[in-house]
Order: sequence, then C-alpha cells, then structure tokens
Amino acid sequence: ELKILGAEEDLKDLKHALIDFNGKSYPFRGSFPPMWNPIVLLDFNNLWRTMDEMGREIPREAPWRAPHAEEWDNMTMMELFEKICWTSTVRRFAKLFVNVNVTSEPHEVSALWFLWYVKQCGGTMRIFSTTNGGQERKFAGGSSQISECMARELGERVKLQSPVCRIDQSGDTVAVETLDKLTYTAKYVIVATPPALNLKMHFNPELPPLRNQLINRVPMGSVIKCMVYYKENFWRKKGYCGSMVIEEEGAPIGLTLDDTKPDGTVPCIMGFILARKCRKLLGLTKEERIVKIKTISNRIHVSTCVCQPVHYEEKNWCEEEYSGGCYTAYFPPGILTQFGKVLREPVGKLYFAGTETATEWSGYMEGAVQAGERAAREVLCAMNKIHQSQIWQTEPESMEVPARPFATSFWERNLPSVGGLFKLVGISTVLSVATAAGVVAYKKGLLSRS
Amino acid sequence: ELKILGAEEDLKDLKHALIDFNGKSYPFRGSFPPMWNPIVLLDFNNLWRTMDEMGREIPREAPWRAPHAEEWDNMTMMELFEKICWTSTVRRFAKLFVNVNVTSEPHEVSALWFLWYVKQCGGTMRIFSTTNGGQERKFAGGSSQISECMARELGERVKLQSPVCRIDQSGDTVAVETLDKLTYTAKYVIVATPPALNLKMHFNPELPPLRNQLINRVPMGSVIKCMVYYKENFWRKKGYCGSMVIEEEGAPIGLTLDDTKPDGTVPCIMGFILARKCRKLLGLTKEERIVKIKTISNRIHVSTCVCQPVHYEEKNWCEEEYSGGCYTAYFPPGILTQFGKVLREPVGKLYFAGTETATEWSGYMEGAVQAGERAAREVLCAMNKIHQSQIWQTEPESMEVPARPFATSFWERNLPSVGGLFKLVGISTVLSVATAAGVVAYKKGLLSRS
Repeated sequence: ELKILGAEEDLKDLKHALIDFNGKSYPFRGSFPPMWNPIVLLDFNNLWRTMDEMGREIPREAPWRAPHAEEWDNMTMMELFEKICWTSTVRRFAKLFVNVNVTSEPHEVSALWFLWYVKQCGGTMRIFSTTNGGQERKFAGGSSQISECMARELGERVKLQSPVCRIDQSGDTVAVETLDKLTYTAKYVIVATPPALNLKMHFNPELPPLRNQLINRVPMGSVIKCMVYYKENFWRKKGYCGSMVIEEEGAPIGLTLDDTKPDGTVPCIMGFILARKCRKLLGLTKEERIVKIKTISNRIHVSTCVCQPVHYEEKNWCEEEYSGGCYTAYFPPGILTQFGKVLREPVGKLYFAGTETATEWSGYMEGAVQAGERAAREVLCAMNKIHQSQIWQTEPESMEVPARPFATSFWERNLPSVGGLFKLVGISTVLSVATAAGVVAYKKGLLSRS
Repeated sequence: ELKILGAEEDLKDLKHALIDFNGKSYPFRGSFPPMWNPIVLLDFNNLWRTMDEMGREIPREAPWRAPHAEEWDNMTMMELFEKICWTSTVRRFAKLFVNVNVTSEPHEVSALWFLWYVKQCGGTMRIFSTTNGGQERKFAGGSSQISECMARELGERVKLQSPVCRIDQSGDTVAVETLDKLTYTAKYVIVATPPALNLKMHFNPELPPLRNQLINRVPMGSVIKCMVYYKENFWRKKGYCGSMVIEEEGAPIGLTLDDTKPDGTVPCIMGFILARKCRKLLGLTKEERIVKIKTISNRIHVSTCVCQPVHYEEKNWCEEEYSGGCYTAYFPPGILTQFGKVLREPVGKLYFAGTETATEWSGYMEGAVQAGERAAREVLCAMNKIHQSQIWQTEPESMEVPARPFATSFWERNLPSVGGLFKLVGISTVLSVATAAGVVAYKKGLLSRS
C-alpha cells in the first residue's frame, strides 16, 4: 500500500519567495505573488479570470470543437497575452506561468492548446498551487515505487532495455519487434509512449496520414530538473517554505519546491531550468551548472555555512532519446485543430495511452493512469468483454488528500480589467496616471524595425 | 547526359489565370496577378518589398544571427502579415503564397524561418516565378533519371527497401543496421534524410540534447500532388499557359502548372492540394478527390468534351512513413533561433546532408545537391584529403538555363505603403476614401469574443 501525502501542514503558513525581474526578493503567502500597484493588480486579476473563462468554452475531451477553436489555435499564447495584458509586470509573470507549466515558451505553443491544458488541470489556481493544487501530492517513499510494485507483480513479462523498432499488423496478430531482435506477438497492442516516440517504430502497414504527420508535430518540452541538497533545512527556520518563483532573466531556475523527505531528513530544494533557459544552459557541464545555481540560492537565503549545498543531482530530460524531453508534449499553433482528433484514435489493433491522450491532468502521472485504464478498456471492448459505454470512466477522487474547491472573491469576479477601467473613468485620466506610474506596457502595433 | 529545359518559349506569352476568393476567373501575365485598386496595389507592392528587405538582413548560412532574429522567430508569418498588410485581398494572397511555397499555413511557421526560406531562394519574385524562377527548369525525360543514372553507376552498393533502424558509434567504426537485420560498417556516415527522419533510427550513444529535441520540432509540410491528364492541350489553344493561382476557399487546388511533355504529348495539368486543404481532403478516397478537382477545372476552362480529364494520378505525401510529408521541413515559431545551429553540425562520425541543411534553394533538388556535396567534402576534410576552407563551395550556375537578374521599377521601389500614404496625405481623407472603397481590412486589436 502506497501512502499519498498532501502538502505538509506546517509548510502551509510559511512564506514563498518571489525573485522579480530585477533580482529583488519578496516573501509572499498563497499560490500567486501579490501585486501592490492597483493597475497591475487589475491586470493580474483579469489575466487569470480571462484564461479560466476561455477554458470553460473548451471541451476537455475535444478542444478542437471549442466555439473559437480555430481562432485560438491559430495564435500563439504570446499573441494572446499581448491582447489580454496591459502591463509588462503581468506579461512577464504570464510568460513564467507558461514556462513552469509546460516547459516551453508562450510564442511556441498554441493558445487553444495551452488554455485547454490549464482547463483540464482544473484552472489557473489548481495547476499553479502546491497546497490544494498540482504540486500537492507525494508518495511516501517516492513515486518510483508505483512502477517497481507493478513490475514485481508482472514478473518476467516486463521487458526493460528493449526499445520497440517495428510494429507489423499485416497478419492476424500484431508482431512487435524490439531492437535486440526479439519478436512478441499479441492480439492487441497498447502504445503508451509520448506521441512523438511512435517515430522510433517502423510500421507495416504505414500509419494513416494524419497520425503519420501528427507524431512529427508535437514535441516534448525542455527542462533540466535540479536537486540541491543542504546540511540543514535553514529555509523553514527562516519562515520560508522553499517555494520560489524566480522571474529574473539571468537566473537559471524558474521555480523551486521543498523536496526534503517527510520525516525532515535529506534537506533538499528542487528546481526547474525551463524552456529557453534550458536550451541556453544544456551546453554547460554539470559542474558549470551547479555554480550558476549556487549563485542564485545564495542571493535568496543569505550566505552562511548551512546555506552551502552539500550535494547536487540533475536530470537533463532533453538528452533522453526515449522521451525526447519533459514534462509532456506541446502543440505549436495550428496543430490541435488539424490533427488533434487522431491523438487517441486506434489504428487497427493498436490503441494509444500515455498522459498526452488523457482528458484530465494530461501531462501528469494522474493523466497517464486515466489514459492507461481507458486504453485497457478499449481493448476489453474490442474483445467484447465490456460495452462501449464503459470505456470512459471518471477517475476516483483521492480519499487521503481530496481536492477542495477554490473560492473566488467578489472582487476577483467583478474588478474591471485595465481596459475596462479606462472605459469606466475616461481614458485620458487613467492613461496619464498609469503612464506617470510607468506601468502600462506599450501595445506594439508595428515592427520594431519600422 | 541529362538535358535541362527552361520554361518553354511559347508558354511565356500565354496567360496565367487567377481564381479569386469569390470563384471568379481573371487572366494575367507575369508572375504575380495584377491589382487594379490603387490601395490594394500599394499594399501588394509593399508586401513583396518588405519581405525582400527583411530577407536581406538574414544571413543565408546562419539565419539565427540576423539582427532581429529573436523578434522575428517568436512571431508567426500570420502575425507578420497582420502587421504589414492593410487589405484583405493582399492578406489572402499572402496566405496562398505561404501555402504554395512551404505547404503549411502562415500561422504554423516562424516569420524568421519563412523570410529566410524566401531569401535563400533568391527573393519573392524568384521563388514564385516559373520563367526565370523556382518552377522554371525541367529535365528532358524526367528528374527521376538522376537517381536512376547514379544508381546504375553505383551498382549493388545502392540498397533499396532497407530503412535504417540503428546507428552505433560506440566502436571505432560506425555500425548502421537496417530493418532487415543487416549491418553495414563505415568510417563515416552521411545521413541525408529530412531531420525528422533521424527519429526512425535508434542511436548509440544518444544524440546530443539539442539535436535530440530539434528532430522533433521540424515537421514536413502537407501536400497531395495531383496530375490531371487530358486528351488535348485545350488551354494553350485558348491562350492560357496552364498556370492557375486559385484563392477560392472551396477549391481543393491552390496552384497549377502545365506538365505536358516537351514534345507536346501527354497533355497534363499538375496541381497541389496544400496545407489545411490537404488535411481536409486526405480522408477522402482518390475517386472522391478527382470529382472535386474536375469541378474546379471545369469552372475555369469551360466544359467541353476535350476539357474532360481522361486520367488522374496523385501522390499523397502525408501518408509516406519515410518522408513524413513534402516538399520540405518547416520551422514553427521559436525553433530556428534555439535549435537551428545544430541542423548540420556533425555528431561524431555522422554528417548531415538533405535539402533542409542547404543554404541556397533549401527545400528544392538544387539544395539537396549543395548539401550532399558539402557533406561529402566535410568527410573528405575529416579524412585529411581536403582543407577545411574547401568544404563550402558555390554551386555552379546552370549553363543551359541561366538565372537572369530581376529588375525592379522606380515605382516598385518608391511607391508608399498604405500606412505611408496615410501619413503623406492625412489619415482622415484616405481612410474615408478607402473605407468607402471597402478595401481596408479591420486591424484587429481585440479578440472576437471580447
């Protein structure tokens, strides 16, 4: 029996830290850093509200059928932010929000896809929160126990170090050939890799044209996961929970979380090097990266001997041939509406699982479980063991750490956007106030070269 | 000896046809259809001039080093068109220009990449022209003779039907294994597939992280090539050269060219089903597609018995496992600046050819030749047979059909853009005239939903 732990109670009242664009550090509580400038506050509130409102229009099981699917899919998330956000502070945070959640850049991803992704994780608050959110749950003893326990039960039927290089459906059964030249036959096959890894396999007959092109169009994100170990958990003593949101362009890491073991041993801060920063830093050696990471952790926690890392581990997901990147696949503009419908469409006796094919917490372990069980039920249905109506089933809620609803305040629901405020009180007054405060970003209508 | 033919002299004075957005047909001469509305004319002229000017800033061998590389790479070509174009007529033609040249949609491709692509083909006029342009040259007897003649000379060293599934560089030599379980060893290997097809191979050791991620980020375009055969070449008799530029949304084909044999036999019109239309129509059967294609050819050439097709052939490139699409790979926004520099960077004893790695006519047969010869010289250099300075050599100009310079007129160089005209004569006057004429597109600053 694996035990699921929620966010630790004693961490909930501790402070997060925000390192801003200029490298200054501010403590805060809650999921999002607070904004003090009233124009920025309106802009910040309107961003999350707008993204969640747009998400409500998108069917989680078929985002390509959203009323504005084509319009939103043909623009990047950066274009959408340029339309929604008025202040550079909020635009910078919005960029980090994309970096953290999907390990890619706002200009790389379809707006429709990203809005869908946030929606099927329960919205902006749920996806970004630790307590009551996407980063809340852990397994006591580590999540690798899940695959280890399953492998023990399955015994020799689990084949490791055996990449599949060929799938042949030309006969009555499916023949699956591995790189070490062994062939396995089966009545049905579930492919549970990220979609792009289908390309490692040679198919007979060829995949249908839309799937053949889809698998070339959904790359995995770019991330290096860094674990920095300390002698003591000095941050909790200082009233910090270990979460840092780091906007500074020169900082390698964008987000940190406390990864100390539940019993308080092995003090550790986990951090992600994300998207553009990942591509910039992956040419360095591990030793060069740890130097850069140390510099930033010192800046936040004041340098004393207990604040010096004693050990460092990292995982550069970009170098993995058999994942291609992490955490999940992203959809560039235009792909979801044109190719999305074949994402989990069976091809003969092949069925598709993998977190990318899920409709809830796709991109997470939760989504992988939903997808695997759904694909297994598709095969059961093909074998006439269950009815088609039984294929899709709602995953049960966690009993140990249930998700609680998020309450939005009257003000969160009803405060105007910056544009709305302009209309309300007259443009010229607000513009002069805002310009004086230096917070309104210049809405670019021309190329910088012209 | 293969004979290269230029555009046939007797076709040069014949008319092209433009089928516009409403399905109306207009004859025209020259590469681009003429625009009669003066506002549209200014807009049209400014579009090509601006694209060519931007192209001049982009180094053909390293587009990621252009002065505005990051800004242009982070926007799609659709975003750039929205900034440059004032009229919907020109935007629609600009979209078709992207569809025809790179078999993808303006919102799918990086502006930097597309501007580079047009530039390294010699600019907007060169890439889009038949006479003196990208579609000019043919081989008497067909271009497949090139590979057939080469294969004859090489004899049994050419292995067909042998896809590579593994490349092992862990020893002193490179071991290349094919799907039929044969292993070839070599001192050096040149991989001449599109970059994405590297994914069909399993590598030991793994590819470097940037290349591992690049090959998942550069999909091939979507196109079905259609050949419609007629009993007679009725279009030449009517004064048409067989080229049609088809903007109508309901029409399957976007561009046609005469493909009748040089001696006048086998009258044929070749047409492309491009990008979004390709994805829409590839679910149909070949028989259903020919019905749709016939409909449009009838609309243009007036239905008589000689205008009825007698035969139809097509090639759906999207279904090809070992190309992934056609004509070439495209770069979605953000990829060229982050990953472009490893496109032809050798990995151990692997060298990379293929038209995508060329710096002139990349995407065409010409680029494939440049890339193949350059990669061969890289290997010669590694073997100490030539000096490093000899690796890059300019491809010789065709003696039989030389490219002639394009002259731009004083007016093409100096006419104002629509925006420039507004500034010149005062915004209100022009706006009212233009609005009355109904030609100024609404420059969207808000989402349609808000």
